[in-house]
Amino acid sequence: MARIVMKFGGTSVADIARIRNVARHVKREVDAGHQVAVVVSAMSGKTNELVAWTKEASMLHDAREYDAVVASGEQVTAGLLAITLQNMGIHARSWLGWQIPIRTDGAHGAARITDIDGSFLIQRFKEGQVAVIAGFQGLAPDNRISTLGRGGSDTSAVAIAAAVKADRCDIYTDVDGVYTTDPRIEPKARRMSKITFEEMLEMASLGAKVLQVRSVELAMVHKVRTFVRSSFDDPDAPGMGDLLNPPGTLICDEDEIVEQQVVTGIAYAKDEAQISLRRVADRPGVSAGIFGPLAEAAINVDMIVQNISEDGKFTDITFTVPSGDVAKALNVLQKIRETVGIDDIQHDDGMSKVSVIGIGMRSHAGVAATAFKALADKQINIRAITTSEIKISILIDGPYTELAVRTLHSVYGLDKQ
Amino acid sequence: MARIVMKFGGTSVADIARIRNVARHVKREVDAGHQVAVVVSAMSGKTNELVAWTKEASMLHDAREYDAVVASGEQVTAGLLAITLQNMGIHARSWLGWQIPIRTDGAHGAARITDIDGSFLIQRFKEGQVAVIAGFQGLAPDNRISTLGRGGSDTSAVAIAAAVKADRCDIYTDVDGVYTTDPRIEPKARRMSKITFEEMLEMASLGAKVLQVRSVELAMVHKVRTFVRSSFDDPDAPGMGDLLNPPGTLICDEDEIVEQQVVTGIAYAKDEAQISLRRVADRPGVSAGIFGPLAEAAINVDMIVQNISEDGKFTDITFTVPSGDVAKALNVLQKIRETVGIDDIQHDDGMSKVSVIGIGMRSHAGVAATAFKALADKQINIRAITTSEIKISILIDGPYTELAVRTLHSVYGLDKQ
Repeated sequence: MARIVMKFGGTSVADIARIRNVARHVKREVDAGHQVAVVVSAMSGKTNELVAWTKEASMLHDAREYDAVVASGEQVTAGLLAITLQNMGIHARSWLGWQIPIRTDGAHGAARITDIDGSFLIQRFKEGQVAVIAGFQGLAPDNRISTLGRGGSDTSAVAIAAAVKADRCDIYTDVDGVYTTDPRIEPKARRMSKITFEEMLEMASLGAKVLQVRSVELAMVHKVRTFVRSSFDDPDAPGMGDLLNPPGTLICDEDEIVEQQVVTGIAYAKDEAQISLRRVADRPGVSAGIFGPLAEAAINVDMIVQNISEDGKFTDITFTVPSGDVAKALNVLQKIRETVGIDDIQHDDGMSKVSVIGIGMRSHAGVAATAFKALADKQINIRAITTSEIKISILIDGPYTELAVRTLHSVYGLDKQ
Repeated sequence: MARIVMKFGGTSVADIARIRNVARHVKREVDAGHQVAVVVSAMSGKTNELVAWTKEASMLHDAREYDAVVASGEQVTAGLLAITLQNMGIHARSWLGWQIPIRTDGAHGAARITDIDGSFLIQRFKEGQVAVIAGFQGLAPDNRISTLGRGGSDTSAVAIAAAVKADRCDIYTDVDGVYTTDPRIEPKARRMSKITFEEMLEMASLGAKVLQVRSVELAMVHKVRTFVRSSFDDPDAPGMGDLLNPPGTLICDEDEIVEQQVVTGIAYAKDEAQISLRRVADRPGVSAGIFGPLAEAAINVDMIVQNISEDGKFTDITFTVPSGDVAKALNVLQKIRETVGIDDIQHDDGMSKVSVIGIGMRSHAGVAATAFKALADKQINIRAITTSEIKISILIDGPYTELAVRTLHSVYGLDKQ
């Protein structure tokens, strides 16, 4: 007997037929004797419809009202899945955020979970009841509904798994796991059976859109063993109910992965823009003077490269932002240009960031050099480089993205045999 | 300064443009210095969509889950109207049933309101805040969402008006008031400026589908002065903001109506069926033996006529049911036929019930005789008659409905001059 949290996203609950399929996945685990909580998103398209209405009512809207409107989507799915499960003879009930409650802070529209009392749910598990929980929502200190922001249902699932001390948190999605790179770019990409939290965090934040970054962070902190698996697999196919190794990718602690690979995956992010600030006065506080205002404008600055100035008076600073933020960033920079002392502002669109990720590279030298040589062999120009302990990110011209991904995937031996 | 509860139904909030129109009605009252609570239904079509999903999930569904699903419709409208009002510079917030809370009994799907603590709302009124309240829903003793059954938003509005001691409860709908009869049948029908609770109750229960019967009952018990008025009128037209006499029909206590008319309106209900039980053994308990099982089967039995038996041994019992319930009723009757002792069961579809209503008929003789003579003059056959203190109901053959309504409307002097 295990305790399992199962999470199903919008495409998995898009209509009653699919909800019925979800119920079959749940039934499989219940029949195996497990204690089960299910976290659901809104039916696909519903959240967009609700958000569009709030925008049509007013472009500037009260986040508390937005939350009341938008959270209704998950409420509907939770009730419908509970009905469907009951119809299959399974003892189930729906739970809304305020009923458990899932307590959050007061940041309506992008709230953070502060506390979940799992004791209520655990009591019901012992009575054999399946909990069907509306994801994405909680109860703010003002006694009103809060939402966790887009993709928040993954976070709900992981937080609930931590609160009830679940053995596993299964994130059912429209892909069947995490791949060594995007299979649409490299058909030789392999599904990983395991990946560490740290690696997944890098994969997720770099554009492998399988799981929300927040949910992976939370899973890492609370050591929640998280499976990414497909909701479109036949619920009763052989192996689907395997307790230890269901089909999919397990995101887990480093300890669980016996043999570390040096490089586990290649991620990429398109539509990056490079902004270069030329001959910036080099004095203490200059970086804060630049990146402070950009952060205040909610611009997501990513790679930052600063060269040591030759003469100790001026320096060049280069950084990247999503292409969509370039205009806003340039606007901010023009305003601070005089005070900070920036001689020239240049920018370049259509860049891509390709990243080599692997927890094993901490103990292996030469990983970066291999990447640089492989890209050079293909005549791919490197615009900027940043590195962390488990990741090397390289900025290149957008049109070379696919070639770079395939080249790196191959050079680190990730191709399928 | 007055305290006003305004209620808007599904067609009045069908899309954002109409919600904006509703907001203008609210703004008019706020600008006049009144304290305002607004009760809203789900956007038209939404409740049907949600109900259809619950049925698709399972024909036999847990009413608690049904409530969680269906109540989401009003939640959405409340948030959207609050946003729209804020956009017009009005201090407003949405309230869900569980937030106030509107406490109900545990009859999920058809709950009755047991208690509303109005003090919270009144405090906010004093701070100048408009309360936008999701209708149709409450909080059951099990801490889960309950719904009041179809048309429950009218009941929510009246109950809230009673709880906050409102001066007026305005029910905005797609008609501009209560008419002496259906204007589609009799173009000479007049809009009444006032009608008593008792009369409205008869009008509502007899097929004038302006207001839910429950809400009228509640208004009568708590003496809530209720206006029926149109949401499609220009919110800023002259007279719309009149405190004492806004355009529409006031439903009020008898005392407020100085000069009572003998007959105030003619109602009708089509698609009635007549069931006659012939040569029923006439002994104590026979009525209970027949109408008990019918009630248990949730069949809405209306007019009941029982003739005194000639020989003291047998009697004929005739009653009406909605045409849709005939098959179910016959099924129940076949089962009890032997035990009760019914010789023959006859039934006849396609009847209509036409009713003459007026609180003044309590003190006027001859009202019924006038109706019988008028119908006889038009060769309309009377199948059955029942009367109450303020109403005479006559069962006739369906094809004569319109003729009967027009004849009675004219004979009691209700026609427009």
